[in-house]
Amino acid sequence: MSRTVHPIEAESYRIIRSVVDTTALPRRSRDVVERIIHTTADPSWRDDLVLDEVSLDAAAQSLGGGAPLVVDVMMLAAGVTTYPSICLVGTREVRDLAASVGLTRSAAAVRLAAERVGDGAVWAIGNAPTALFELLRLAETGAVRPALVVGLPVGYVGAAESKAALRATALPHLSNVSARGGSAVAAAAVNALLYGDPLA
Amino acid sequence: MSRTVHPIEAESYRIIRSVVDTTALPRRSRDVVERIIHTTADPSWRDDLVLDEVSLDAAAQSLGGGAPLVVDVMMLAAGVTTYPSICLVGTREVRDLAASVGLTRSAAAVRLAAERVGDGAVWAIGNAPTALFELLRLAETGAVRPALVVGLPVGYVGAAESKAALRATALPHLSNVSARGGSAVAAAAVNALLYGDPLA
Repeated sequence: MSRTVHPIEAESYRIIRSVVDTTALPRRSRDVVERIIHTTADPSWRDDLVLDEVSLDAAAQSLGGGAPLVVDVMMLAAGVTTYPSICLVGTREVRDLAASVGLTRSAAAVRLAAERVGDGAVWAIGNAPTALFELLRLAETGAVRPALVVGLPVGYVGAAESKAALRATALPHLSNVSARGGSAVAAAAVNALLYGDPLA
Repeated sequence: MSRTVHPIEAESYRIIRSVVDTTALPRRSRDVVERIIHTTADPSWRDDLVLDEVSLDAAAQSLGGGAPLVVDVMMLAAGVTTYPSICLVGTREVRDLAASVGLTRSAAAVRLAAERVGDGAVWAIGNAPTALFELLRLAETGAVRPALVVGLPVGYVGAAESKAALRATALPHLSNVSARGGSAVAAAAVNALLYGDPLA
């Protein structure tokens, strides 16, 4: 990693390791757990996340090789500052598609992005359960084959259900059990795969 | 409010009101609590936030009148989609100022923004405790008089301390007690003042 680690970030990680035991986790899983706790200051994330080391490691290597990164909202894009991402939700085509077929804009953005980026992309959903459901539908038909689905939508309407549905698929994925989630958490998960361990 | 409320948002608020009792809170305080719970799906925010109705109502009216909104990071700017915000953290001047005086970039961005926007702005800090400490220092010298300080930086290094320092001032403010916080939460607080009650 050539990224410069700020002393405040290093200090934060030392504190995290003094309050949360992550030593039993394999490398990428630990990176994800620690960066999400760094981002949220909430250690309860450790036991909420569902992680698969093989999928995470493969996705990190995909990103290392320049795989496309698709995100559902601009806030998530803004949280991933060192890697380009694709976010179509604010475009006119997405607005038109959403209106014409009765999808949410987030779901329409996923449908349009799937046509454009093809297979092997990392998909990060931090906001809308409808976006994750649409991605699962497309993947089931074989229309898109993600390298990883970061499924961390948030909220009381469908978020936990959409993440449970993701875990019921054979897709490489990262998710959490509760209704919590959000752009900052999803960005942290992606950043963990990009940055690795800042104390290493 | 002319903003269109999506049916999913309305449904989310109905669920929030069935699981968290916010009826004892005055209008603006309730708006902030509920929108942060909507954003995080974490009801524990209700008892973590420190809110002052008079300050919140005055700030909502300032925003209604077009007061400047200054934010510490682009992710927070991206989370406030219906109101322009000022974020200098990525500019060359801020990078130069940070390097020359030994501030973090977030703190340097606050210093530069204070010179530019003057009094009466709403300031939202969702990331860096150093930014909040710098804003408090400037306000103490009389260099800037905020209409409201949304103090919700996150993390294990100084965040809780910076928010406690904010609460020890006479500045109109919104904050929380724990180390939690973040751009999504700070954006939700600002959006609450902009949107009001989506079920009203």
